[in-house]
Amino acid sequence: MSLAMLAVRHGCELHGDPDTIVDHVATLAGAGPGALAFLANPRYRTQLAATRASCVVLDAESAAACPVACLVSGNPYLSYAGIAAELHPPPPLRPGVAAQACVADSAVLGAGTQVDAGAVVGEDARIGARVLIGANAVVGAGCLVGDDSRIMPGAILYDRVRIGRRSTIHANAVIGADGFGNARGPGGVWTKVPQVGSVAIGDDVEIGALTSVDRGAIDDTTIGNGVRLDNQIQIGHNVVIGEHTAMAAQAGVSGSTRIGARCIIGGRTAFAGHLSIADDVVITGGANVTHSIDKPGLYSGAIPADEARSWRKNAVRFGQLDAAIRRLQALEAAQRGQDES
Amino acid sequence: MSLAMLAVRHGCELHGDPDTIVDHVATLAGAGPGALAFLANPRYRTQLAATRASCVVLDAESAAACPVACLVSGNPYLSYAGIAAELHPPPPLRPGVAAQACVADSAVLGAGTQVDAGAVVGEDARIGARVLIGANAVVGAGCLVGDDSRIMPGAILYDRVRIGRRSTIHANAVIGADGFGNARGPGGVWTKVPQVGSVAIGDDVEIGALTSVDRGAIDDTTIGNGVRLDNQIQIGHNVVIGEHTAMAAQAGVSGSTRIGARCIIGGRTAFAGHLSIADDVVITGGANVTHSIDKPGLYSGAIPADEARSWRKNAVRFGQLDAAIRRLQALEAAQRGQDES
Amino acid sequence: MSLAMLAVRHGCELHGDPDTIVDHVATLAGAGPGALAFLANPRYRTQLAATRASCVVLDAESAAACPVACLVSGNPYLSYAGIAAELHPPPPLRPGVAAQACVADSAVLGAGTQVDAGAVVGEDARIGARVLIGANAVVGAGCLVGDDSRIMPGAILYDRVRIGRRSTIHANAVIGADGFGNARGPGGVWTKVPQVGSVAIGDDVEIGALTSVDRGAIDDTTIGNGVRLDNQIQIGHNVVIGEHTAMAAQAGVSGSTRIGARCIIGGRTAFAGHLSIADDVVITGGANVTHSIDKPGLYSGAIPADEARSWRKNAVRFGQLDAAIRRLQALEAAQRGQDES
Repeated sequence: MSLAMLAVRHGCELHGDPDTIVDHVATLAGAGPGALAFLANPRYRTQLAATRASCVVLDAESAAACPVACLVSGNPYLSYAGIAAELHPPPPLRPGVAAQACVADSAVLGAGTQVDAGAVVGEDARIGARVLIGANAVVGAGCLVGDDSRIMPGAILYDRVRIGRRSTIHANAVIGADGFGNARGPGGVWTKVPQVGSVAIGDDVEIGALTSVDRGAIDDTTIGNGVRLDNQIQIGHNVVIGEHTAMAAQAGVSGSTRIGARCIIGGRTAFAGHLSIADDVVITGGANVTHSIDKPGLYSGAIPADEARSWRKNAVRFGQLDAAIRRLQALEAAQRGQDES
Repeated sequence: MSLAMLAVRHGCELHGDPDTIVDHVATLAGAGPGALAFLANPRYRTQLAATRASCVVLDAESAAACPVACLVSGNPYLSYAGIAAELHPPPPLRPGVAAQACVADSAVLGAGTQVDAGAVVGEDARIGARVLIGANAVVGAGCLVGDDSRIMPGAILYDRVRIGRRSTIHANAVIGADGFGNARGPGGVWTKVPQVGSVAIGDDVEIGALTSVDRGAIDDTTIGNGVRLDNQIQIGHNVVIGEHTAMAAQAGVSGSTRIGARCIIGGRTAFAGHLSIADDVVITGGANVTHSIDKPGLYSGAIPADEARSWRKNAVRFGQLDAAIRRLQALEAAQRGQDES
Repeated sequence: MSLAMLAVRHGCELHGDPDTIVDHVATLAGAGPGALAFLANPRYRTQLAATRASCVVLDAESAAACPVACLVSGNPYLSYAGIAAELHPPPPLRPGVAAQACVADSAVLGAGTQVDAGAVVGEDARIGARVLIGANAVVGAGCLVGDDSRIMPGAILYDRVRIGRRSTIHANAVIGADGFGNARGPGGVWTKVPQVGSVAIGDDVEIGALTSVDRGAIDDTTIGNGVRLDNQIQIGHNVVIGEHTAMAAQAGVSGSTRIGARCIIGGRTAFAGHLSIADDVVITGGANVTHSIDKPGLYSGAIPADEARSWRKNAVRFGQLDAAIRRLQALEAAQRGQDES
């Protein structure tokens, strides 16, 4: 694809020969002829001078230092994402149901949908058009899967789960397993609380491999449009996640917590149950969020990041604590000496 | 089902018309006619006045404030669990082996058992009566699965795993994979230590989606009767978990640790290896348990909760640490001034 | 197998009757006649005196206290690993493709390879000799799997993943799912960044159940020879893990971090992205590693363990913090009294 065409289609300013052709993406360091690279993270700026890419997507500030053609963008990573998707489209669907798949007679499949070997589609499931049901994936009875969505190999949808359009559920993820509802009786014996809700996932959602989203106890667990969940995330029953929120790997959200729209949640963050998190909250990784957050902003756990900075100042002092208490003891001894003198 | 019948069968005191019929459960806020709701968490008491449920299960204290019929119980959540199970029974089994399932000739299936499409049952496996083997689940050679248990879609039992009666293994859980046993040799090269034990899971156990329970190195890893494990929990080899213990999502138990009966373990709690945890221990979520616990009680990690409270008092002081050390420096300067004067 | 033969084959010094036969392994406490046990962890030394094993593998120091025959080794756990593998070999492969498996016409299978029921092997995949493809496992298009490797039930390899020889991928692990690459646009809307790299896994690697290794954004995610990853580990895109590194369960490595050779990483350890960790680094469990580590050694998080020891001294003082600040206030009051007097 010519740089001229990419510049037009992705709204970038082109520096260099418009007829140069690129046909694949590469890293700045690994690129050769025909490769398009990008520079978005300042960490990699030192690699720009030596790149052998045919073209680099970057911001205006870096353009002058670029030794090869470049596409200048106000948001280079976003422009790169769009160009990379053009250069590396997913393999086209092969519509039809594999001989070794098992689709219930009462299930409905839209036009152009591909059901791979070993996939199982349950009674009354309704699958849209141009959907991919990967090898050994399971779509339970009564599920809805919207047009252009992809259920990757081994992913499991329990009964009655609803997935919107253009969403992807990655391999071995589990959507709609029972929430953890148990009532304790005499002798500590647990009685299971039926989990009669389901899961509703919006449009343009991506859910990572080995992530689990539990079905609601009564109402549905809800994942808004445009949400991105990384791998190995656990979403408890009755949780609601607002539109365009992203959450990195191994995070966990306990039951009935509501997270707002456009939040960015670092990896391994854990949310207690029954919390409410405002829109536009950013939480650094590894945090334990034990309280609700009612204002947008940057947080470490449920603590605003500016307080967290002050916390870090105290943390430096923490390293002086043993010495400080010894000094306090010395002062106290001196004081006693004065009192006695 | 009439409230009169529910009151009798579940041992509740009925306030209201005994002939009122309920046919489904709902939340206090979402309920309409025909719905049974419950109030167990004081957090939701404010929703009681406006509920449109036909009946609410609640405790004696809340009964007076209930605007509709109610079933009064000493343990409303437990009563609700029983009633909900009556109103929403699981779909009945469809006994038989799906054409696309694969059951070894030497495997034995009990009466009324359902084996879904894509499920694989290995040589010499013995499956009890009224068992569900879900789509694409795998039951390894020589496994035992007791009556009325359910192996949900995609769950994997390695060879020789034993599951009791009325137990559920949720989707994509893995029971009996090799424990992490590696011996280090010259040059840091690892030699695998064969994991020749297996896993024994009791009756009435529920194991969550994407949870793994490793087989023992020599003896069996053991999960007692009535245990509840949430999703994405890792149980290492040789671990023993006592009866009726419950563990919330993303917890992890390192090898050879023994956890007592009736413990309640918060989500994301991590146990080091080779520990011993007493019966009736409750551990708050997110804790790192690095020492054994020999007495019942409430703990934050391996620290009793009352010590944890004192810890929190110190934690408040932590926020004053930088200022305190500056004050200490001022006092020291003053002291020096006095000494020199 | 006779102790004489084991001593010769595993380079141990035999104390006891060379004609004694052992045919299985057992724990010191559980062993009976015919059992071989081992003593490597001093924690279990008290069990030596009462063991009924026919033979114990142990070090020279413990040999005198052993009441039965023993095989003395400089590295008893390593010697035990080798002997146990001889006494408990894995079940032999049953070469061939199960009727219910689905192997693409263009895929190539080596001699002696076993493909179990429900397994799916994609177009142009090349599978070596004596490989096991377990029940319901999925090997994507264009994958390479080296000789003598084992893809256990339900494990998923996305397209173009490469696995070396003698490696094991445990059940329901996911290799090669898309890395978490999303570019943020106006309104917080995410655009997926195509993940066009793949995953390269070396020889003699073992990857635990429910572990995910994401494919690279551009270049490959790389797992070196001899690496051991336990269960439920998340490896982000572009990560590189050096040879013979071992990582315990539920650890997580964020994107583009490079971990050296022969590292030992405790369970639940989390690595931030874009870090570089030297060879021969040992990190205790549960740590958050937020900075690069450039020297071998023992670390708690990114903090050297000797600093961590000093940290623990300060942590003891932390328990005295509230009291210390009260004492500081008293001193300040006394000082004020002196100043005013």
